[in-house]
Amino acid sequence: MDKLKQYLNTRPQDELHPSEIANLLKDLNEKYFDEAVQSIPKELIADVALELPDRYFGDVVENFTPQEIAESLSEMESDDQTDFIQELEEHDDSKAKQVFEQLDKEDQQDILQLKQYEEDEAGAYMQVEVYAAKLDQKVEDVIKEFAELKRKDELENINYLFVTDEEGHLRYGVGLDDLILFDFKKTLRENIQENPEKFRPVIGHDYDDIREIVQKFQEYDLNSMPIVDTYGKLLGRITSDDIYDIINEHATDQMYNLAGVNDEAEEDVDLIKAGKARAIWLGINLLTAIAASLVIGLFENTLQTYVALAVLMPIVASMGGNAGTQSLTVVVRQLALGDIAKHDAWRTIKKEVILSLGNGLLFALVMGIIAWVWFDKAMLGIVIALSMIINLLSAGFFGSMVPLLLKKLNIDPAIGSTVILTTVTDVVGFFSFLGLATLILL
Amino acid sequence: MDKLKQYLNTRPQDELHPSEIANLLKDLNEKYFDEAVQSIPKELIADVALELPDRYFGDVVENFTPQEIAESLSEMESDDQTDFIQELEEHDDSKAKQVFEQLDKEDQQDILQLKQYEEDEAGAYMQVEVYAAKLDQKVEDVIKEFAELKRKDELENINYLFVTDEEGHLRYGVGLDDLILFDFKKTLRENIQENPEKFRPVIGHDYDDIREIVQKFQEYDLNSMPIVDTYGKLLGRITSDDIYDIINEHATDQMYNLAGVNDEAEEDVDLIKAGKARAIWLGINLLTAIAASLVIGLFENTLQTYVALAVLMPIVASMGGNAGTQSLTVVVRQLALGDIAKHDAWRTIKKEVILSLGNGLLFALVMGIIAWVWFDKAMLGIVIALSMIINLLSAGFFGSMVPLLLKKLNIDPAIGSTVILTTVTDVVGFFSFLGLATLILL
Repeated sequence: MDKLKQYLNTRPQDELHPSEIANLLKDLNEKYFDEAVQSIPKELIADVALELPDRYFGDVVENFTPQEIAESLSEMESDDQTDFIQELEEHDDSKAKQVFEQLDKEDQQDILQLKQYEEDEAGAYMQVEVYAAKLDQKVEDVIKEFAELKRKDELENINYLFVTDEEGHLRYGVGLDDLILFDFKKTLRENIQENPEKFRPVIGHDYDDIREIVQKFQEYDLNSMPIVDTYGKLLGRITSDDIYDIINEHATDQMYNLAGVNDEAEEDVDLIKAGKARAIWLGINLLTAIAASLVIGLFENTLQTYVALAVLMPIVASMGGNAGTQSLTVVVRQLALGDIAKHDAWRTIKKEVILSLGNGLLFALVMGIIAWVWFDKAMLGIVIALSMIINLLSAGFFGSMVPLLLKKLNIDPAIGSTVILTTVTDVVGFFSFLGLATLILL
Repeated sequence: MDKLKQYLNTRPQDELHPSEIANLLKDLNEKYFDEAVQSIPKELIADVALELPDRYFGDVVENFTPQEIAESLSEMESDDQTDFIQELEEHDDSKAKQVFEQLDKEDQQDILQLKQYEEDEAGAYMQVEVYAAKLDQKVEDVIKEFAELKRKDELENINYLFVTDEEGHLRYGVGLDDLILFDFKKTLRENIQENPEKFRPVIGHDYDDIREIVQKFQEYDLNSMPIVDTYGKLLGRITSDDIYDIINEHATDQMYNLAGVNDEAEEDVDLIKAGKARAIWLGINLLTAIAASLVIGLFENTLQTYVALAVLMPIVASMGGNAGTQSLTVVVRQLALGDIAKHDAWRTIKKEVILSLGNGLLFALVMGIIAWVWFDKAMLGIVIALSMIINLLSAGFFGSMVPLLLKKLNIDPAIGSTVILTTVTDVVGFFSFLGLATLILL
């Protein structure tokens, strides 16, 4: 709190960046938070609220009137405005409506347009404020027009000039580093015609999968990409800062899915939502754990005779689960990064089986000897060694096969694959260990 | 193969982007790969080799002479040149030396300079080819100089003009969208003086942690960042395409660390390396699994009396492991994304304990009834229900506490935390279940 006030006093207001304020607020003790929020410069309220982790959003907006929020919101670009309104709707629907009504017609239309897109569509991530010049404009006129808009603060962070025909269809993209070398007295068309291929932009369509767009940014090292509709009309642009966020979000999604956690539910202030989402996966896990127990139940007699089996049996399942998770994680991630090509499935499975079988042989030997010495029974060592080889072999096979199969079926390979895998390694682990014990020891 | 040839024939060579070639090669059957590699345009060899997943690198470079590789390498920027040489060194050290010697003095020096930085230092990711203007240059002279360099193809992808003093200390950064609005007849200094605050750049130092740099790119929505030395001298720049790669790499690292897999070892063509790295974690897991078995061993008598306990006991451990992994994953990821602030440790632990305790109560009830009905023994239901509550409670506590503690000790919270956690959930699970059974049932 003191720190924020100090900070606000030592630096002129217009220098503060919303993320600096957000960082200071985050580190504050809850007690001082509300007081500190009041000292956020009014024009940055919406920015700061979006920069903070989701759980602070409500605390920030509660401290300001719809009027104040709307004013700071009108300073933002359309994609951020839409994010903000959607976030606010989740917290306080009636306040969201009030804020929306305070915005001017143009902002309202932009938000309504962007809200139509699904979460995985490129259109949902674009900002519609783009400056486009017409092909037959003179370069010097373009620059004059551009300067005018800059002075009015209507443009920022531009490094790419979009050039359209009279109907608004995107034709070319000219980097500003090329634009300043153009002949200012000639039209854009005349300048571009000297080397039109160079100015052919990498474009995205509004209904494209956002994953493909991210892929293109990485492949072509882009800073920004124009987004057009089905007819080639320029709609907006996606910029590198959107891509940073999306890459992070997708990685979070993937990690959470592997662990049986839902990203959206976790971000909600309502703990019940996160708890419910987690409970679903725990419930599925309970069913698979019971299935594994049923397998154990088949061998009650064997267990009765050799209690040592009950002592050792979780080791086989645990090692299989771990080796399988190693394979699964590598395959899921490499699929997401595009490192596994279409014809690579067989090569991938082979690699994972070799790796887990290799380690299976190693640890079978180690554990076989330990079990033999521990319980002074050589055959017990052989039983655990054999079952360990079987279980790690199947861990490598299923750890790679399950995500590849899910991908083939167009299901996200991170969702549910962990549960399927541990069911396999538990069932195979218990069955092979207790089964072999029944055959060999009884 | 046919596809690549077709492609190469239907499009003029200078239009091809390395990533397009890489994508076509990746989808080829191994049989045709070598032949297709030969048809990569010579000037793109190095680019394509870097774009492909690591395992193809050797196959590509084997098909070309050091001379050919050096020529294509000389077209690249210094950061990519350094990546390429380092990758080649891992594959074929003598060929790497030959290629290096074919490069011109300047490229050699750049590579040697960049190789000095550690993997986590900003300097390792910068390119040293930057265009900088002097404060007292006239804008029109700057643009003339700039045009000259662009014509020689020595500059690309510039959207930010760095302005230094006579000694090369970075003073300002001017976006090209601002530069074209400057008075071309005046010096940079005169133009900038009208609003110097606006042109104060967000900078990084060469020895900064690359994670901090990535953070700044996200917070300030940057496309590129100048990197300076301790004295403020301009050394190079990091661009958005580097940031995309780094964000992805860090996420991969984190997922792999949680699963007990090593990123670098997995990317190596040598399977032995990946196998060894995985074996280390499996070995540690074996030790903890044996520890859990020792706990079970304490209750051999109880197990002898009630074999049903052996059947049910993995359920308690499995549910604890899963609930703990949920907490662990969320906390590790939120720590990495900066969503958990310094004073947030207590709030985080509390949240995770509430969530896992809530689900613990739910599934204790469910499983208690199942066990009661299954084995027709009410007390058995009570034993499993109580141990489930205890185990899920400790899963939430340790699942959040372990990564927070590791972070506090400046250890990567993703490394080893899974093993620590499953040890806890196994030991607590078996001990509470069998211990309560001994107390209540015997």
